Amino acid sequence: MRAPTFHDAQISMQHGAGGHASRRLVEGLFVPAFSNPSLDRLGDAAFLTLGDHRLAVSTDTFVVSPHVFPGGCLGSLAVHGTVNDLAVSGADPIGLTAGFVLEAGLDAKYLRVQVDALSKAAADAGVPVVAGDTKVVEHGKCDGLYINTTGVGIVRPGVDLSPERVRPGDAVLLSGPIGDHGITIMLARGGVDLSTDLTSDSRSLLPLTRALLDALGHGVRWMRDATRGGVATVLNELTMGRGLGVEITERDVPIRDAVRGACELLGLDPLHVANEGQFIAVVDAEHANDALDALSSVPGGGEARLIGTVTDAHPGRVVGRTDFGARRVIDMLAGDPLPRIC
Amino acid sequence: MRAPTFHDAQISMQHGAGGHASRRLVEGLFVPAFSNPSLDRLGDAAFLTLGDHRLAVSTDTFVVSPHVFPGGCLGSLAVHGTVNDLAVSGADPIGLTAGFVLEAGLDAKYLRVQVDALSKAAADAGVPVVAGDTKVVEHGKCDGLYINTTGVGIVRPGVDLSPERVRPGDAVLLSGPIGDHGITIMLARGGVDLSTDLTSDSRSLLPLTRALLDALGHGVRWMRDATRGGVATVLNELTMGRGLGVEITERDVPIRDAVRGACELLGLDPLHVANEGQFIAVVDAEHANDALDALSSVPGGGEARLIGTVTDAHPGRVVGRTDFGARRVIDMLAGDPLPRIC
Repeated sequence: MRAPTFHDAQISMQHGAGGHASRRLVEGLFVPAFSNPSLDRLGDAAFLTLGDHRLAVSTDTFVVSPHVFPGGCLGSLAVHGTVNDLAVSGADPIGLTAGFVLEAGLDAKYLRVQVDALSKAAADAGVPVVAGDTKVVEHGKCDGLYINTTGVGIVRPGVDLSPERVRPGDAVLLSGPIGDHGITIMLARGGVDLSTDLTSDSRSLLPLTRALLDALGHGVRWMRDATRGGVATVLNELTMGRGLGVEITERDVPIRDAVRGACELLGLDPLHVANEGQFIAVVDAEHANDALDALSSVPGGGEARLIGTVTDAHPGRVVGRTDFGARRVIDMLAGDPLPRIC
Repeated sequence: MRAPTFHDAQISMQHGAGGHASRRLVEGLFVPAFSNPSLDRLGDAAFLTLGDHRLAVSTDTFVVSPHVFPGGCLGSLAVHGTVNDLAVSGADPIGLTAGFVLEAGLDAKYLRVQVDALSKAAADAGVPVVAGDTKVVEHGKCDGLYINTTGVGIVRPGVDLSPERVRPGDAVLLSGPIGDHGITIMLARGGVDLSTDLTSDSRSLLPLTRALLDALGHGVRWMRDATRGGVATVLNELTMGRGLGVEITERDVPIRDAVRGACELLGLDPLHVANEGQFIAVVDAEHANDALDALSSVPGGGEARLIGTVTDAHPGRVVGRTDFGARRVIDMLAGDPLPRIC
């Protein structure tokens, strides 16, 4: 498959959304500039070999708006986002760095709330914040604060979660209900007349990914967290250029009523809405039930489901099957209905 | 020494300047929130043990304004800043991550210039960019682009550059002329009627730190790059709470005429002006000449000088001796004459 080229004249919000435009920017501009084997993989984390160890490294800047939302805040999200990239790479995090850009005039109490939330989320995930940096820019050159976190982890010995290991017949699992984070953020911004008790799913996935690797070992083929662009984008990225497709049974995808209702109202497909505490795992079909048992043995894993199968029937395509036997192609996110989601 | 407390009501530009206000923010707010042995060291990099290896990790966000200046740009600075933090920690970098915050409306050609500069600087320093992230925020919520880089390196076996190793009588070396970066940035902003051919000193310090460690090994006690807050701040941080002082011979500090002239005009002390390609090394006095020989054997190391001595005569104080035998106390930077220098 040919890499996309980048000919856009200007950066727009769509380039940050995780869909087609983001892919053009990343694969058409950044990757050619930095080309090297670690980066070219475009996984959730890069891998570096160090003696007998494999290090995983992942970086993410968080610009979510608003900074505080039901179920989380910028500070906690900054931990979960990066920790989860390491978790789905089969790595145990050993340290996080935190880089802050602060806007002059920012209320110091407000900053403290975010710093404390970051600290607590890191402690809860069992990962120390080992290094930090602070920069201040003039009022009007930032939206209060932005936080970059970079995580370093050690990949479990023997674990290989490269997409090349995925094969036809493999089972596609989803860790829980989708869309909670994206819809929570959208509602927290106001302007939508909808009252729900929905909260973001922002959480560390480490307990779930560890349980899965403990139970299945090499039977886990591939994992990825379904953040920007949602489950649809993750599955499309898996199938692109690999001679494989994915078929999902739409009824089996867990979606809360509040998310379904909001998506209908807003004209969104829940499969495109961002999550911050859900991931896709592709496992050996033989062990799909063991995988679900392992996930449900962990708090927060009880809503994991088998949602589909890897197939060679329609390479490069993600297809959804509805209750009525109809099929539809599920594409990556194209526009950006939900900017600054993370 | 008691850690400073942070009672300021708001963040101001001074908190980003690297002097007293920055120290209050970092040690009064961030460090207590994240307290752990790696972070509490407050070195240029954090250290993590991995089997027989010691990893060094450092993070920095770059918000320099303007983005392009004589001798460098945001993209190249983003590499040098982080690579140098690893270099002065005695580490060989094995990978860099790059996290971009982009402002909607940013000219894509302009972005490409910065990305290419980052890529070239990384290649020149011999460090691969292994992972990246891109976020887009609305027009008016960023100043074009900000870049976070985080570096991972391996500390040379046997190298220990902790400040506890510094003792009275040790020699204080400076790698070259100071103030070039800060004054270049200030002049690039316009508004100062001064014409010079000054360029930023932004560069990778790896060739210099490697030459020094090759030549002296354990004879190198401590190194730090003199970025925000300049040489004065670095030396004050070394002496604080350690029962040690530093005496420098002001005449021996290399300063270009253009920097000296600009500083006189602007009422700045060159010792407070930021550098992006100079570092302080404290070495065993016996080997000070070997150290200078080693530095001058490397391109760009010929202007290194012995500038002073560690002393127990005035603990906690950095004192400058002038040609006329007068002495003055050289304090950390207090205000922020030069915001967004890096």
